[in-house]
Amino acid sequence: MTTEEVAKKVVELCRKQAWKEAIDTLYANDIVSVEARSMDGGSPEMKGIDAVRGKVDWWIKAMEVHDSKVSGPFVAHDRFVVQFDIDVTDREAKKRFQLSEVGVYTVKEGKIVREEFLPKVE
Amino acid sequence: MTTEEVAKKVVELCRKQAWKEAIDTLYANDIVSVEARSMDGGSPEMKGIDAVRGKVDWWIKAMEVHDSKVSGPFVAHDRFVVQFDIDVTDREAKKRFQLSEVGVYTVKEGKIVREEFLPKVE
Repeated sequence: MTTEEVAKKVVELCRKQAWKEAIDTLYANDIVSVEARSMDGGSPEMKGIDAVRGKVDWWIKAMEVHDSKVSGPFVAHDRFVVQFDIDVTDREAKKRFQLSEVGVYTVKEGKIVREEFLPKVE
Repeated sequence: MTTEEVAKKVVELCRKQAWKEAIDTLYANDIVSVEARSMDGGSPEMKGIDAVRGKVDWWIKAMEVHDSKVSGPFVAHDRFVVQFDIDVTDREAKKRFQLSEVGVYTVKEGKIVREEFLPKVE
């Protein structure tokens, strides 16, 4: 798959909230995933497809998604960008908030090898 | 300047279409600038602040900007993303078109050392 094909598939699957299918079909085993901040004070960088699966499992359990908008993709060479605008409630904290961020993805040999998430700064 | 400070300044200057001031104050001398496609069939990658100045000079001469929207920034670590939606006319071709793309910027020691432009794919 070309970068553009991978990018379009990510958008399609994220619109369906099919995060696990996206990982299973589009992610390299040695994916590096970088958040703006770590959730537990550790490193914001995760390595390996199982760590990313764990993050998605946590997200699905922890968050109730009310609405989400997935914009893009923006594509050039081995890179693409997708924008996420999500309205969620943290189930445990019972706190509703709006998340706006972009994912910057790097593709190698048809698989996503790196993803970085950048929150919107007001 | 932190990545966030550089990012906010880029947004502020781009909203004023002060591209030259952005380059003079925020770009490293050895900036690498990557377009999705080259304009002349050569490399889409330019090196050095003078090459980037040349690109901006070309843009200002070639394009009449009717309207532009600059969204963001999205920021994490040494990276930030800005979205540009621009309504322009190519003066020579007399062709009006809408451009939607993101810039992915990398910051090192308070200066932008790399920028990549990724057009929106429909």
